[in-house]
Amino acid sequence: MPSVSQALPSTQYNPYAEEHNALAGASAPYFSAPNSYTTPSQPLQYHLYYPIASARETLQPYQRQVHDLFIPESLREDLQKKSEAARQVLPSQPGVQLPTLQHYHSLVPLDTKIRGTTSTFGLSSWVFKATSRKNGNIFCLRRIEGFRLTNEEAIKAVNSWKKIIHPNIVTTIEAFTTRDFNDSSLVFVHNYHPLAKTLAEHHFPSNRYGRAAPVSEKVLWGYLVQLASALKAIHKAKLAARCIDPSKVVLTDRNRVRLSACSILDVLHFEVPRRVEDLQQDDFINLGRLVLSIATNTPTRNLGDMRLPLEQLGRTYSLELKERISWLLCPPQTLAGKTAEHLVYDLAQHADDMLVASFNAHDENIAHLSKELENGRLVRLMAKLGSINERPEFDNDPSWAETSERYTLKLFRDYVFHQVDAQGNPVVDLGHIMSCLNKLDAGIDEKIYLTSRDHQSTFVVSYKELKKQVQGAFGDLLKANNKQQANRSY
Amino acid sequence: MPSVSQALPSTQYNPYAEEHNALAGASAPYFSAPNSYTTPSQPLQYHLYYPIASARETLQPYQRQVHDLFIPESLREDLQKKSEAARQVLPSQPGVQLPTLQHYHSLVPLDTKIRGTTSTFGLSSWVFKATSRKNGNIFCLRRIEGFRLTNEEAIKAVNSWKKIIHPNIVTTIEAFTTRDFNDSSLVFVHNYHPLAKTLAEHHFPSNRYGRAAPVSEKVLWGYLVQLASALKAIHKAKLAARCIDPSKVVLTDRNRVRLSACSILDVLHFEVPRRVEDLQQDDFINLGRLVLSIATNTPTRNLGDMRLPLEQLGRTYSLELKERISWLLCPPQTLAGKTAEHLVYDLAQHADDMLVASFNAHDENIAHLSKELENGRLVRLMAKLGSINERPEFDNDPSWAETSERYTLKLFRDYVFHQVDAQGNPVVDLGHIMSCLNKLDAGIDEKIYLTSRDHQSTFVVSYKELKKQVQGAFGDLLKANNKQQANRSY
Repeated sequence: MPSVSQALPSTQYNPYAEEHNALAGASAPYFSAPNSYTTPSQPLQYHLYYPIASARETLQPYQRQVHDLFIPESLREDLQKKSEAARQVLPSQPGVQLPTLQHYHSLVPLDTKIRGTTSTFGLSSWVFKATSRKNGNIFCLRRIEGFRLTNEEAIKAVNSWKKIIHPNIVTTIEAFTTRDFNDSSLVFVHNYHPLAKTLAEHHFPSNRYGRAAPVSEKVLWGYLVQLASALKAIHKAKLAARCIDPSKVVLTDRNRVRLSACSILDVLHFEVPRRVEDLQQDDFINLGRLVLSIATNTPTRNLGDMRLPLEQLGRTYSLELKERISWLLCPPQTLAGKTAEHLVYDLAQHADDMLVASFNAHDENIAHLSKELENGRLVRLMAKLGSINERPEFDNDPSWAETSERYTLKLFRDYVFHQVDAQGNPVVDLGHIMSCLNKLDAGIDEKIYLTSRDHQSTFVVSYKELKKQVQGAFGDLLKANNKQQANRSY
Repeated sequence: MPSVSQALPSTQYNPYAEEHNALAGASAPYFSAPNSYTTPSQPLQYHLYYPIASARETLQPYQRQVHDLFIPESLREDLQKKSEAARQVLPSQPGVQLPTLQHYHSLVPLDTKIRGTTSTFGLSSWVFKATSRKNGNIFCLRRIEGFRLTNEEAIKAVNSWKKIIHPNIVTTIEAFTTRDFNDSSLVFVHNYHPLAKTLAEHHFPSNRYGRAAPVSEKVLWGYLVQLASALKAIHKAKLAARCIDPSKVVLTDRNRVRLSACSILDVLHFEVPRRVEDLQQDDFINLGRLVLSIATNTPTRNLGDMRLPLEQLGRTYSLELKERISWLLCPPQTLAGKTAEHLVYDLAQHADDMLVASFNAHDENIAHLSKELENGRLVRLMAKLGSINERPEFDNDPSWAETSERYTLKLFRDYVFHQVDAQGNPVVDLGHIMSCLNKLDAGIDEKIYLTSRDHQSTFVVSYKELKKQVQGAFGDLLKANNKQQANRSY
């Protein structure tokens, strides 16, 4: 291993020679080149794969694993399952149009139960996903069956909810009445989160209470922190959640919860108004009941007077959690005015844990994105090369003849994809393909030696020239493409 | 617009017919098919682009924008700049090996000043990035010039720091002494964050104090929340940060700060130990000075007795911020034992704001990842197709002749990349190319009509069959590839 000073040649190239004299010490020219970072001596090349260039450069091609270049399978699978769920449609029948509701088409039921649930709203409700004709986005539609709207003002209650945008609340889009189900139905439109599960479904699978493993305390604190944050936003807007129940809080990602079904009771119970302050106090009690229910694996309707389940909770979990739940459950008359701010204060240390976890998750995702983002560029480049090489309609066009620049590109295609070893056997190496394409996209000065299949003609050409040729040939294609707008597609 | 009931045919196909009788109501068979979600009637196809399939299906090809399919340019540019910075190397000279330090090679100086900084450590220090030979990762090396280690125990102080893994602290890797700079130098190795800037560089560019625009209060709260979280983790491990200064806190992402240079003073001042409790109390004061310095645009060394700058801060920012800074600056004797927990508690409402922002950023990144992750798959598929089509070395091999399945794949290549319109002009449509490739990768049942260039032979072939042919032809290639290990590359 050479030491630093040995490695320093006396006649070394120094791009900062004019500042040379200001530096002292034998190793100074090399190691303290001023501003060497801000004015790099080579042009910035934003186009080369970082992972290939560094960590893996000493590996043999066959040691290069596909997972070095792409995102982890578990995350990929999760994202793909969500994408699949979002795209799922009912099988269509020839001649039969799929049902629509207002500007929402392609309705797909999301309920897994035989009949709609009735407990929370007092009326049967059904949940669908549907695609909006207006913007092509997918939304979650909840139909409240057999509700007759007697006061037009009632439905305007959703307007305040439209403004509540919070990562722990499913955003409300709109509400409307419909006779399309052959009755008077009320439909609420919320944002759609594919594969969302309610906390009831997650913690009480198939309604078999009393069998699940105890939930970790960390998860419970996570729910509390997130729902406290949601309550803070809701109460600040002078609203109340009114729907904090395991069947109405959904899990949309690992340990990420969101209040769903907000705004519905505001419309349904418009005729029997209650003071918002009282409803807000109820929110705290309902939050306490929700956590107590999950912690003790008891459905909320079986919690009774809550002293027993609280004691049960105290046996498994920390005193701090028991105290926090007790505070939430405490009747409003004995503790004048609980506030969400107070709750957020009390949960500060756990919010800090969440923040650390969230930052770490963010860093991890950015790392995945960095790996993955190069692929989009390669897809575009391969699409260009594929469009240029061997186009049949130019077979008789002398200007497109393969003796010109397109011939070089064809030979380059062979160089990239049709490598052979010394014995003439094909070499299949993803690393080689990607590295060549990256260099082409970057248009670097490196030169390669291309040879025709009959070995009669050879070229020495730089990636820079090749890049120009791709741009030229593709530009010609676009010119020939009579839809000039397609230009924008690349 | 057909109503729901009109759209229901009486003889409609129902995959759940056996449960049909249990359902009541005219619309029940369609809308309440039990478990329709969990047992989809079509096989799951994880391979189709979600964005193409839904939001954009009514758009014309030329309306399909590239940014619908790829991540936003600003994020992409940021990630690419970071990747470029990480890869940057000094120009190499023939015959001269680049300097190395222990197992770190390819050292590149990161300091932008003429001489190393001296203020914090009392000795000149120099920062490099370097690549580890052990794992290929890049690290940040800080050389402390002219330090003679007199006690071997001193360097062991870094061991406790290695265990501190926190999103607001730059992780310490190791420390060692070296004579490679022709002196006694101490080198600290930390995680490398490309394009990280110190808060001093960010808020006091070129050391021109007194000219920058006032920093928003939200940013200051963000710094406080993050550094309080870091202090909580450090103090819990019975350590003290000792380096909270605008020149030693780095910005690694939008508004994300990290304490850098941890552990260094523990080693340098090993011979003059102070009680860790006192050092921890100093951390609070230094945090107060840091925020005060940035808020008033005054370098920490010019803050004086801090009453004046505190007053100045009070004129621009909220009373709450002033109170928090006063608490931090308050001498330890007047307020026995400030704790990081107390600080975290006091900052709870602002931590909640951060958490909301962090969750939103996470959701956005996941959305980008979902879009981008399909591209990796297409790159692999295009690489396969490129390797299969028109391989020269099989030109005379009858089993590889283009009358067999490879001929179909060649015609498919024409179908994908060489589309023409009715007038024979080339059609260039990225959406068509991607949609075809996605269908091929999914191997769906959809059939396409392929025709030879001379229109003499035509095929009707499903994507499913094409997929099998790709797998077959590519398998043959791999067999012919005498490096069998390359198999793993795909």
